[in-house]
Amino acid sequence: MSRDTQSGPEGLRDAACRGDRAALARVLSMVERGGPDARAIAAAMTRLAPTRAPSQASPAASYTVGITGAPGSGKSTLTNALLGVMRGRDERVAVLAVDPSSPYSGGAILGDRLRMGDHALDEGVFVRSMATRGHLGGLAVATPEAVRVLGAAGYPWVLVETVGVGQVEVEVAGHTDTTVVVVNPGWGDAVQAAKAGLMEIADIFVVNKADRPGAAEAQRDLERMLDMASIPEAAWRPLVVQATATSGAGVDAVWQAIIDHRRHLETSGQLAEQRRQRARDEIARMVAARLAERSREVTSGDQAAELAEALARGETDPWTAADELLGL
Amino acid sequence: MSRDTQSGPEGLRDAACRGDRAALARVLSMVERGGPDARAIAAAMTRLAPTRAPSQASPAASYTVGITGAPGSGKSTLTNALLGVMRGRDERVAVLAVDPSSPYSGGAILGDRLRMGDHALDEGVFVRSMATRGHLGGLAVATPEAVRVLGAAGYPWVLVETVGVGQVEVEVAGHTDTTVVVVNPGWGDAVQAAKAGLMEIADIFVVNKADRPGAAEAQRDLERMLDMASIPEAAWRPLVVQATATSGAGVDAVWQAIIDHRRHLETSGQLAEQRRQRARDEIARMVAARLAERSREVTSGDQAAELAEALARGETDPWTAADELLGL
Repeated sequence: MSRDTQSGPEGLRDAACRGDRAALARVLSMVERGGPDARAIAAAMTRLAPTRAPSQASPAASYTVGITGAPGSGKSTLTNALLGVMRGRDERVAVLAVDPSSPYSGGAILGDRLRMGDHALDEGVFVRSMATRGHLGGLAVATPEAVRVLGAAGYPWVLVETVGVGQVEVEVAGHTDTTVVVVNPGWGDAVQAAKAGLMEIADIFVVNKADRPGAAEAQRDLERMLDMASIPEAAWRPLVVQATATSGAGVDAVWQAIIDHRRHLETSGQLAEQRRQRARDEIARMVAARLAERSREVTSGDQAAELAEALARGETDPWTAADELLGL
Repeated sequence: MSRDTQSGPEGLRDAACRGDRAALARVLSMVERGGPDARAIAAAMTRLAPTRAPSQASPAASYTVGITGAPGSGKSTLTNALLGVMRGRDERVAVLAVDPSSPYSGGAILGDRLRMGDHALDEGVFVRSMATRGHLGGLAVATPEAVRVLGAAGYPWVLVETVGVGQVEVEVAGHTDTTVVVVNPGWGDAVQAAKAGLMEIADIFVVNKADRPGAAEAQRDLERMLDMASIPEAAWRPLVVQATATSGAGVDAVWQAIIDHRRHLETSGQLAEQRRQRARDEIARMVAARLAERSREVTSGDQAAELAEALARGETDPWTAADELLGL
């Protein structure tokens, strides 16, 4: 096998799937970078498909858990504590730390190693930052592809931790199988969560830092808000769990809540339906991104400038000009 | 000539250009309606072009004055008072009252007649409401086309009055040759105007209801804000004019400010450049609207659903799926 083949998309994919962590990191960098690199990886991943059972979700599809909440609520600490609990149960876990505001991209390797803490030498854990910005589709396109890669590389669980609570983060965290929203005692007014768009996407609320005063009140406020939401009988009612991630107290209960929610999704048929819907959304986003790219291309050239002159002179109309630019 | 030809786009266009007000109203309804009707009218307008002088802006292109500001600032009253001043100088004027929030479309004839007041029987004035919503491109597409029609129908001045101060209104009012922003005494904090995005688009500020206390302070606040904006020597510094539209006081000065701004744009070459830029923007909006339409089409069909299933099974990737849907 030539050097080129080994380091090309197929070679990297094979190495990543065999457990080569450096290869996996390089594959994820390509996904993060977007454009032709990301496309080459996506195509290489697809070519694995014929070996799988037909007409069912890919057996390699990871179960994804989104972890989101206001800055300072302790998302990272909770993620690390969850890692510990999951490793204690022999689950292989990858973490995608999604940070649209970060100036870093390409892995932030040092930061990731520091973050991994106790898990730095653990082959069953893989931690990765994503800061993809400014290219076709951005994080909303890169994240699901990274999840597919991690699934193929042997991580059946992926925790997707988001850093901010902007629209992108809510979107990314909301496109996971289970969404955990982290709040704090005294974080108080549940209206804040509603404002940030977190109520709609939460499957589990974790009242983190529960050793501080006000944890019971925060839980009660959330339960009351859920009461008011009048959730249908058969639907999932979000669980509210108190935890103190720094000491590990309550993190077992968070893990159990995730398991409970997963079982609910699986037995109700919602998991398959949600994943179908997410796949539809993913394709729609890609179509929109491709068309936006095309829009930029056709409206920035000489032909566009000439047609604008013609329109200003009354010699064409916007419909005809748009058709000409689009080659219709 | 058959009845069909008379009532078709070309026949209506000819009648509107001959001064038939009912025909002009029908043409504007077609523009407002959007879609195939608007396109047919646009094409009919273009076919007038060969009779015009080449390589210059259409001689029929109207000069447009946008009139915008917060609800209750007295935009309509000022527009009507301006109409009076302009008719006193024998200028033929059309008014487009743009209201994206109105449930009415198709002309709101009765309201328009009431609004016209003293000008209801005046052939030199044409008033029209536009409430185009929910179709390709909306008001941002319909308004420039309506202006072209009014120009061809013999109205060299078009006042574009917007009803709200949402993004659409700012966009519509900002796409005119001269933009008048109406404020009130005690409207006070210039920050409000800045927040609404009005500072950037104003060529003239009218402190309306200047018979109330605080008019001089409002003028001073605006002038101070303009001082802070450090406008380059050669650029236009927005004029601030006090007026009381209900009594007509100061409306002559508003008209003079419009004339001064127009002369500045013409002598500096900015008018031609702005119109070229607006034509480019107009085509870009149409391209974006056409592509958004296409995106909705391709992502809503059976093929999209099948590709989503394939993606969920790992048998395709988003890039390939998008390409297939777009026929690329």
